[in-house]
Amino acid sequence: MLDNVRISAPLIHNITNYVTVNDCANILLACGGSPIMADDVDEVEEITAVCGGLNINIGTLSRRTVSAMLRAGKKANELGHPSVLDPVGAGASVLRTNTALKLLEKVKFTVIRGNISEMKVLALGRGSTKGVDADAADAVTPEFLDQAVAFAKDFSRRTAAVVAMTGAIDIVTDSEKAFCIYNGHPDMSKITGTGCQLSAMTAAYVTANPNAPLEAAAAAVCAMGLCGEKARARMTGLDGNASYRNYIIDAVCNLTGEELERGARYEVR
Amino acid sequence: MLDNVRISAPLIHNITNYVTVNDCANILLACGGSPIMADDVDEVEEITAVCGGLNINIGTLSRRTVSAMLRAGKKANELGHPSVLDPVGAGASVLRTNTALKLLEKVKFTVIRGNISEMKVLALGRGSTKGVDADAADAVTPEFLDQAVAFAKDFSRRTAAVVAMTGAIDIVTDSEKAFCIYNGHPDMSKITGTGCQLSAMTAAYVTANPNAPLEAAAAAVCAMGLCGEKARARMTGLDGNASYRNYIIDAVCNLTGEELERGARYEVR
Amino acid sequence: MLDNVRISAPLIHNITNYVTVNDCANILLACGGSPIMADDVDEVEEITAVCGGLNINIGTLSRRTVSAMLRAGKKANELGHPSVLDPVGAGASVLRTNTALKLLEKVKFTVIRGNISEMKVLALGRGSTKGVDADAADAVTPEFLDQAVAFAKDFSRRTAAVVAMTGAIDIVTDSEKAFCIYNGHPDMSKITGTGCQLSAMTAAYVTANPNAPLEAAAAAVCAMGLCGEKARARMTGLDGNASYRNYIIDAVCNLTGEELERGARYEVR
Repeated sequence: MLDNVRISAPLIHNITNYVTVNDCANILLACGGSPIMADDVDEVEEITAVCGGLNINIGTLSRRTVSAMLRAGKKANELGHPSVLDPVGAGASVLRTNTALKLLEKVKFTVIRGNISEMKVLALGRGSTKGVDADAADAVTPEFLDQAVAFAKDFSRRTAAVVAMTGAIDIVTDSEKAFCIYNGHPDMSKITGTGCQLSAMTAAYVTANPNAPLEAAAAAVCAMGLCGEKARARMTGLDGNASYRNYIIDAVCNLTGEELERGARYEVR
Repeated sequence: MLDNVRISAPLIHNITNYVTVNDCANILLACGGSPIMADDVDEVEEITAVCGGLNINIGTLSRRTVSAMLRAGKKANELGHPSVLDPVGAGASVLRTNTALKLLEKVKFTVIRGNISEMKVLALGRGSTKGVDADAADAVTPEFLDQAVAFAKDFSRRTAAVVAMTGAIDIVTDSEKAFCIYNGHPDMSKITGTGCQLSAMTAAYVTANPNAPLEAAAAAVCAMGLCGEKARARMTGLDGNASYRNYIIDAVCNLTGEELERGARYEVR
Repeated sequence: MLDNVRISAPLIHNITNYVTVNDCANILLACGGSPIMADDVDEVEEITAVCGGLNINIGTLSRRTVSAMLRAGKKANELGHPSVLDPVGAGASVLRTNTALKLLEKVKFTVIRGNISEMKVLALGRGSTKGVDADAADAVTPEFLDQAVAFAKDFSRRTAAVVAMTGAIDIVTDSEKAFCIYNGHPDMSKITGTGCQLSAMTAAYVTANPNAPLEAAAAAVCAMGLCGEKARARMTGLDGNASYRNYIIDAVCNLTGEELERGARYEVR
């Protein structure tokens, strides 16, 4: 999966928030892809057309970018390009919830990548989240895993998208098969945008592996988690979340397909 | 003060510039808070409502974000949420000066955090600054300290806000009591956005310590300066401002309340 | 050239993309300049006026920023301020191509800094590029160097700007004299925004050396490449593109005029 990214170097069109956009660009380069960011309605269709895949992230959305997202998404569908939706903060405002729902209605996404609180809001068509992190009540822990898997499979069935629901345990599923992924480190939540970065990287993986979106998305999630572990092991007592951020992207840059194969920790349900 | 931030993990709504926004998000996470960035008029009131505090920074403002700032500020006032204003570059353009003045007129801020040149422009209702740094002529040095303290106290009286005026010596004051803070390192000015980061962190401190805005703001300023010192001490001969930026956020991530207590260097006037 | 930047600390107005803007600000500080970012039409003329030089970069442009670019550019011309154009992704969309062409028509730039694919699009008034990187077919390699130099000189003649065309070999030329620069490292292309950073730094160099735009632009290109080499040499096996990014800015921060003199590798054609 990773080797295919490095070989094909997919160009990914990102319409994403201005908070974590630089890290998204650098992680795309790190994993072997190539980023382009463009969010003006007057150019998004052309940009989508020259790219291999599309990544839409609704953090810091505005009226201007919402229409660009819709246009780019429709264009990607038209051209058969893989696309990823990251519904950042869905539930935190009506604008975010409605934008995410409208995107799901008008665009067929290959993968939806978010936390469980965001997914629940989208599945129910309403609800609320506190900001951009999952509610504590929604934590995916071993005892609630079966329930979470069932929810994710059902949400995947209804959206016809691979669902990548990340948290303490990550669940990547289509309507049939779920990968429960145990890679990662709790301190990753102390870095802004690890979720956004994963979504961008997932777009590169599914674009480079067009016939295996479920496995490609699962590989991207394993890769991010594994790099989170490797980067954490590298930290000294003086390092904090800023260095950790850099070390994760560094680890993505140095990760080989063989290491990913060996380090991925998951079970299938 | 810091321990309260780590315990309550305040969610801070930031309407801020796109230059330093990522660092603001990471320093909020580093100090124990949680960031959300949202600047669309259609969602800012809801976002402010789900957060505990608000941080408004006028760097890279636009017509679109100015109205969002006003709405969010009024909402924060309505809900009794602490709020911080960072009048970046006030005086460098009429738009910036007028926006900052309008915000001060329509919104009651808990803290105003800026450099002395920006503060002077706001106090006089006009004037000019050269860009986003304080004029050399405005440097707060020991011989001008009394004068600067008097100015800051007066500005605090007129705005009913805690004034955090940062420079070679930082002054944090309400109309009565001024903390003159000696922490920090001159090389911090070689990093873009240490001021913006401090404003974001100040919002977390005052939100977590609602009954002591003066002391909370002073603690945030001491923390930033102390971390600037610790990070500077960590630098090797090959390091420059990029690594320094990371080391400061790392230091904020690792700072304990006890260390802050011990390392804070200030006098009260 | 570098010493003049450090002595005069030129204030540079940047209208640039939100992807790499933070790195542009930090590299400007690293080289001895001072950045201000402002893109609202209502303030760009004033901001340009208080600055010494202007840097326009069309990555993530929008209708809103295009008009700001035009106004700022005209103002800079009026005041005789040096200006740099970075036509990021010209050719990837009609909007980008037309914006770059319109800027070239309405504004006289001191330097145009881009890759060969972007330059070709602008020279021909049409054409296409794949995203924001140069086409492989356009690589400036030793065997095509003469041809590339001739093209760059011709483009410089027609635009009356110094042309800084960067790639495997960088060419910095006016219509008469071309510097072919061999500094740099291929891994720099694994970092987002090294081109944007170079453009910002070039603006500082030409602003600090107003009577020698060709030599100043060449010095900036040598400095960036040399710092790319020094930073690459500093990397350990665990480092990747995120640390490399930081190390380059660090190296720019520590670079002396003497080192630049000694480390620059170029020939004149």
